[in-house]
Amino acid sequence: MTKISNLDIKLIAEKYGTPVYVYDKQRIISNYKNLRNTFDKYYPNTKIHYSVKANSNPHILKIFNEINAGTDCSSPMEVLLSQKAGFSKENILYTGNYESYTDLEFALNNVGRINLDDINSFDRLLKVGKPDIISFRLNPGIGRGGFEGITTAGSDAKFGVPYEKAIIAYQKAIDAGIKRFGIHMMTGSNNLEPYYFAEIVEKLMMIAGNLFNKLEIVPEYIDIGGGFGIPYEDDEDPLNIDLTAKLISEVFIEKSAKYHFGTPQLLLEPGRFLVADAGYLISKVVGLKNSYKTFVGIDSGMSTLIRPALYGAKHRSYIYGKDKLHQNVNICGQICENSDIFAKNTFLPEAEEGDLLIFRDAGAYGYVMASNYNNRPRPAEVLVDGEDAKLIRFREQPEDLMKLIPEFENL
Amino acid sequence: MTKISNLDIKLIAEKYGTPVYVYDKQRIISNYKNLRNTFDKYYPNTKIHYSVKANSNPHILKIFNEINAGTDCSSPMEVLLSQKAGFSKENILYTGNYESYTDLEFALNNVGRINLDDINSFDRLLKVGKPDIISFRLNPGIGRGGFEGITTAGSDAKFGVPYEKAIIAYQKAIDAGIKRFGIHMMTGSNNLEPYYFAEIVEKLMMIAGNLFNKLEIVPEYIDIGGGFGIPYEDDEDPLNIDLTAKLISEVFIEKSAKYHFGTPQLLLEPGRFLVADAGYLISKVVGLKNSYKTFVGIDSGMSTLIRPALYGAKHRSYIYGKDKLHQNVNICGQICENSDIFAKNTFLPEAEEGDLLIFRDAGAYGYVMASNYNNRPRPAEVLVDGEDAKLIRFREQPEDLMKLIPEFENL
Repeated sequence: MTKISNLDIKLIAEKYGTPVYVYDKQRIISNYKNLRNTFDKYYPNTKIHYSVKANSNPHILKIFNEINAGTDCSSPMEVLLSQKAGFSKENILYTGNYESYTDLEFALNNVGRINLDDINSFDRLLKVGKPDIISFRLNPGIGRGGFEGITTAGSDAKFGVPYEKAIIAYQKAIDAGIKRFGIHMMTGSNNLEPYYFAEIVEKLMMIAGNLFNKLEIVPEYIDIGGGFGIPYEDDEDPLNIDLTAKLISEVFIEKSAKYHFGTPQLLLEPGRFLVADAGYLISKVVGLKNSYKTFVGIDSGMSTLIRPALYGAKHRSYIYGKDKLHQNVNICGQICENSDIFAKNTFLPEAEEGDLLIFRDAGAYGYVMASNYNNRPRPAEVLVDGEDAKLIRFREQPEDLMKLIPEFENL
Repeated sequence: MTKISNLDIKLIAEKYGTPVYVYDKQRIISNYKNLRNTFDKYYPNTKIHYSVKANSNPHILKIFNEINAGTDCSSPMEVLLSQKAGFSKENILYTGNYESYTDLEFALNNVGRINLDDINSFDRLLKVGKPDIISFRLNPGIGRGGFEGITTAGSDAKFGVPYEKAIIAYQKAIDAGIKRFGIHMMTGSNNLEPYYFAEIVEKLMMIAGNLFNKLEIVPEYIDIGGGFGIPYEDDEDPLNIDLTAKLISEVFIEKSAKYHFGTPQLLLEPGRFLVADAGYLISKVVGLKNSYKTFVGIDSGMSTLIRPALYGAKHRSYIYGKDKLHQNVNICGQICENSDIFAKNTFLPEAEEGDLLIFRDAGAYGYVMASNYNNRPRPAEVLVDGEDAKLIRFREQPEDLMKLIPEFENL
């Protein structure tokens, strides 16, 4: 591997230093267009809200605004970032969890639609104001994610209103005088099986159908969340998005007819699917250790990319300009704890000090989860478009880590 | 629970907002003095280097400087922080992992002693300069931590020189003309059994004895690392530090005599043991959800304190001013993923919206591992001394999250 888009990775590393996150603009655009075109084919009244939490750099958000996506925000700051990137109020969706009064007041004033996490969220919302349209996040009692931490529905999940109680939530909204409704569900992240999506949409539609028919209301939109996965390993197949869109749309159309919903807007909240495979983390090999195993030590760590330590996630790795697999190694970072291992027993070409080591699929849940653990400054972010590169986040400097510290006398 | 030191927690929350990390200055001092006095009793030539990575707020570091501790640093920035807190060069120790040229050059110029992670680190060090004294970190082939991620020795660990190769490392140093030596080991974190420490010190001393006798050199210092644990749960006993110090010292003295080491300095690198139980994370209850379980949602998350999500770690929790246990709940944060659960099936008094929820033992590996995930700004830090409170880190503001973003045209 030597290039990202049409730019030589070595030039990027020389110009911006390492570690550095690099994103391929055209890949983001094509990921979006692929999803957009596929749903246009099967259910054109679909709206895509990019999930900001996956990668919130405003320059990335700006790309999504330019191609007419919306955003899905999980905090007030994500709304502010969307605004800075140019999104209009109606294109910003807010989906929180245990939303505070401050969160709800901010959302009410700044976004088009709110997916409420619970009935008690609605009680709080009413104290700060009344929206024109409201939606509740349903916990359908089932859910699945790539692994437990990203499974966001089911009896163990902290999210959503249990479907048995959904009627109480909507009745409350009706009683409060609200006349326009949506409904929301998000059951898990990083799924690769089309029929899984069909299954959860079927479940959501049945719950929504019974609920709304009983209350004699109709949903303006039905938000099925995100969860569209990407393959992180060679032996995984990419999600067949055409089949997924077809299945979702078929179930959606059939159930909408059955429950007399007309043609409600179908909302999607993809994050990972749009940005993960457009991103790379470039690090430099610092040293090789021949201990009980061979360790390739690089100049980043779990402070830079925490997914392997936190989820046991895999990111395929490459050495710049070398293709011939040579040895079985552990790749590890500089952080002083043993969680800081990126890959165990992985095959790499012969590594040398100074080599560039590239992790794929680092565009989602990479920088956004970075920390200053061991007081390591966070990396830079670069956006590549063809042969052009643009710095979209400055590398954090030691002085940045001091800026929130009040002075003391002898400082 | 209502107070930290002599200060009402409610007053702290009102003045500084939530979430907020609060540290008890006198507790830090007494933790240190306890350790100091115990080793003074059994082996006075012991030096304690506080491990900055556990909690690196410079105001905390300043406390340690005032009571004559040293620091142990894992990155250049931790050295800078130590300098700002007033530590002199000889009181700063550097213990890195896969140290880059930059790291090593900085350490060489700014610290008294360096524990090198590997033989290849020494090769890099020699290219930037030659220290007066050098130490290698040994991997004794065994190790144990409270859990796998914090086990820092053994055949799976990324740290240290395998003991079979230690002779090569020291021979290289001798050949390079170095005449003063130390030796280092750190096998794992958060251990509570005195005899474990005796065992690893015995192992280290035997390796060091054979090694140094063979090479006809003598260590000026022997650094046994940290690893002194604290109980995070009610059914754990605190580490018996008197017995631990006694056992360590006995082994240390016996083996020093056996191998003709004289009375080398014994170095300790405690972090957690000195600050963990002096720290609290104060959050506010945002909402209660009666789903398939009862969820208590608070205004912090895995972005604030990642230990439960990352390690499955427990932090005992309390509600301000309420003692009577009432219900079994899950405590969770605002972050939009299901890893964001602080405690499962824990007993709490009756929780209400607006209650203050207090996590204990949050003084170590709390703020230092915080992130901006979901674009949540990081909390404030407050130092309490008796009835006085002092803000030692400003709460991060939305604009702080924007400061590394280069402007774009329509921003």
